Amino acid sequence: MKVRTPIILVNFKTYSEATGKKAIELAKAAEKASLETKVCIGLAPQFSDITPIAQSVSLPVFSQHIDPIKPGSFTGHILPEAVKEAGAVGTLINHSERRLKLADIDANIVRARETGLVSVVCTNNAAVSAATAALKPDMIAVEPPELIGSGISVSKSQPEVVKGTVDLVRRVNRDVVILCGAGITKGEDVAAALTLGTQGVLVASGIVKAKNPYEALLEFAEAIRQ
Amino acid sequence: MKVRTPIILVNFKTYSEATGKKAIELAKAAEKASLETKVCIGLAPQFSDITPIAQSVSLPVFSQHIDPIKPGSFTGHILPEAVKEAGAVGTLINHSERRLKLADIDANIVRARETGLVSVVCTNNAAVSAATAALKPDMIAVEPPELIGSGISVSKSQPEVVKGTVDLVRRVNRDVVILCGAGITKGEDVAAALTLGTQGVLVASGIVKAKNPYEALLEFAEAIRQ
Amino acid sequence: MKVRTPIILVNFKTYSEATGKKAIELAKAAEKASLETKVCIGLAPQFSDITPIAQSVSLPVFSQHIDPIKPGSFTGHILPEAVKEAGAVGTLINHSERRLKLADIDANIVRARETGLVSVVCTNNAAVSAATAALKPDMIAVEPPELIGSGISVSKSQPEVVKGTVDLVRRVNRDVVILCGAGITKGEDVAAALTLGTQGVLVASGIVKAKNPYEALLEFAEAIRQ
Amino acid sequence: MKVRTPIILVNFKTYSEATGKKAIELAKAAEKASLETKVCIGLAPQFSDITPIAQSVSLPVFSQHIDPIKPGSFTGHILPEAVKEAGAVGTLINHSERRLKLADIDANIVRARETGLVSVVCTNNAAVSAATAALKPDMIAVEPPELIGSGISVSKSQPEVVKGTVDLVRRVNRDVVILCGAGITKGEDVAAALTLGTQGVLVASGIVKAKNPYEALLEFAEAIRQ
Repeated sequence: MKVRTPIILVNFKTYSEATGKKAIELAKAAEKASLETKVCIGLAPQFSDITPIAQSVSLPVFSQHIDPIKPGSFTGHILPEAVKEAGAVGTLINHSERRLKLADIDANIVRARETGLVSVVCTNNAAVSAATAALKPDMIAVEPPELIGSGISVSKSQPEVVKGTVDLVRRVNRDVVILCGAGITKGEDVAAALTLGTQGVLVASGIVKAKNPYEALLEFAEAIRQ
Repeated sequence: MKVRTPIILVNFKTYSEATGKKAIELAKAAEKASLETKVCIGLAPQFSDITPIAQSVSLPVFSQHIDPIKPGSFTGHILPEAVKEAGAVGTLINHSERRLKLADIDANIVRARETGLVSVVCTNNAAVSAATAALKPDMIAVEPPELIGSGISVSKSQPEVVKGTVDLVRRVNRDVVILCGAGITKGEDVAAALTLGTQGVLVASGIVKAKNPYEALLEFAEAIRQ
Repeated sequence: MKVRTPIILVNFKTYSEATGKKAIELAKAAEKASLETKVCIGLAPQFSDITPIAQSVSLPVFSQHIDPIKPGSFTGHILPEAVKEAGAVGTLINHSERRLKLADIDANIVRARETGLVSVVCTNNAAVSAATAALKPDMIAVEPPELIGSGISVSKSQPEVVKGTVDLVRRVNRDVVILCGAGITKGEDVAAALTLGTQGVLVASGIVKAKNPYEALLEFAEAIRQ
Repeated sequence: MKVRTPIILVNFKTYSEATGKKAIELAKAAEKASLETKVCIGLAPQFSDITPIAQSVSLPVFSQHIDPIKPGSFTGHILPEAVKEAGAVGTLINHSERRLKLADIDANIVRARETGLVSVVCTNNAAVSAATAALKPDMIAVEPPELIGSGISVSKSQPEVVKGTVDLVRRVNRDVVILCGAGITKGEDVAAALTLGTQGVLVASGIVKAKNPYEALLEFAEAIRQ
């Protein structure tokens, strides 16, 4: 499952609407939207749902977190090799609900590279995004924490945050893919994000809690194709 | 998959010998040993291996950790409902490699009960075991951290720790199942543990890193049957 | 400065009204109230204010936290010996704003004993209080987190929590001093706490943010004397 | 107490040789060496020793850590305003023994600036140093963790790490002061550090555990003057 940009990356969080059987249903709805629009849709389910989802759909699956560890005595931790073998092709790192120490973000990016996982580091503002860019992850997803789950999209309400992030990041790193997230609920939010210089969006409740996630993803994907 | 005592609970940690396909092989070896001896063997694989293992064998599967959360916005965390739906019947809590805050151990025991997961709280000494007993988990597994992975079994080298734990715990709680762990590698270590008043063992490298895990489990199970 | 019960223990938190020079003023107001009423008032200022306060007043001073460490390489941590030498006679452990791992609470109680510091472990409910009692600290202070800073006193609004805590704790430990806290703002809250079987209160905003902390402490102390 | 470069910044850690009265003695030895050589020597004692040391010597005092908080309900945390009022002019942030989340390092740098504290962010390698440089602290102190306390100096044994850090940092930030640390025990280690493009050293055991800290500091300072 190759990761292409522009991308819509759907974070399943630990929502009941995106756990177990419902996670598989959601994944299938996403696959349908992706097949119809040819837009890349990535899925970040809970760890225990990576295997069943990777076996059920042909979309790139991401882990929600990894620990900066090698195989060994780390009970209860997330081994990069384990999520890779389960079917993940990439991983979120440092999501606002799972913030990491700076040294561990650096170590995680290295471990993701060693394991062949696409690294997507979440950040909270422009300065932190620029700092992260110096660590050379594959992707950065900037999400102002106060907008997460708010329904107020960062790309429409705080375009200067997205623009400022893109500018600061590009001074440090020309290659990293930049996503933005927080409050994305409509196609026009997605279109605005791309216009501001990003290559996609990270979205959670906007899709998972939508009345019809398939319709919502279709709207997002159409906005990307234009 | 009902949990019965005495029990041999095998912690897969994040060992490469117990990840992905190898985790399934190990689970099948354990199932064979359990079927032949009628001794209950529990398996605690990594989160991403819970579903495939629960689908492959008829043994009780445990999560290595849960977070004290309800469904919602907890990216990268372990939702009790998710591991339950994946096929787990129980969970380790507070393993020495994943120590938790006291208030979170309490909340986790409550969440495990609500979700229908058997709670197995790991502890490091007799006093902490007695404290944990007051929180009324289903099981307590005492493991002196300095012996974990040492090959020196707690039941043979520190019988007073195991005995003292059993005594202190029983003053607070008559019902909780008591396991012991750390350094268990031979049948005689298991037999000693039961003689000291425990109802089973928590073991990791002693099985996972054994030349022949099936043979090792057979030896452990035979020691329990006598 | 001997610690006597009943006690009013004032947590200065990191309030601006209780930092630096203002912390010393507050300490002097408390000393005046204590001298006039003969009621023991303990003070828990920020770490950097322990020395100046211990040098300014004749009241028992408590650290707000210690780390379970011995002298060595622990930059940025709180060494029990350091706060002791600075003038503290005791320490809070596991305050709801500084929750600790169970194994670290146990180790902290041991370190406090070794260093000659009175250990006051904060807890959030009756079950956790009973668990803590098994670790044999000098004092337990139960504070339902949802009432902290609320102005709704635990002793008046949730007497069953205080009563239930006292009962459960006494089954495990007959000697530990029991305090209660959260929402204490009036003398009658203090009187109610003692009637329910506690030996004092842990209070923060009720004193620190009072219009006149001296008057407020006088009211608390009078309630204790009756 | 103005902070000048080149600087020798002495981390007192939680060493018994640098706690309480002994911390003051050490501070006076450092003051003597600084007065004689005109080289700036900064001191980073434990929180409870900031006030007595700031009152005893005319050297810049640093906190070992701050929390990214404003005045309020943060029991057991380090309020920037509190260490400032106690007499600190700066603070370490993210020491290898007190690693912080990336978002908290960013917030701490902002808080230090607001409070008028010089921010010294510790880092573990060149990439993390460059990332930190993007956050615009006043100083960066690179210390390979494996050399801390080793007696093997980073500037002599791993000059490429120091050189590589200086190069990478300068691409992102021209103004930040760069220090290096880990294993510094001799004047020649200090001289080597400056030759490699740093503006000083962060040192702990090399001074605190020296037979004669005054003599050791004199040697360090002489190496800087040449």
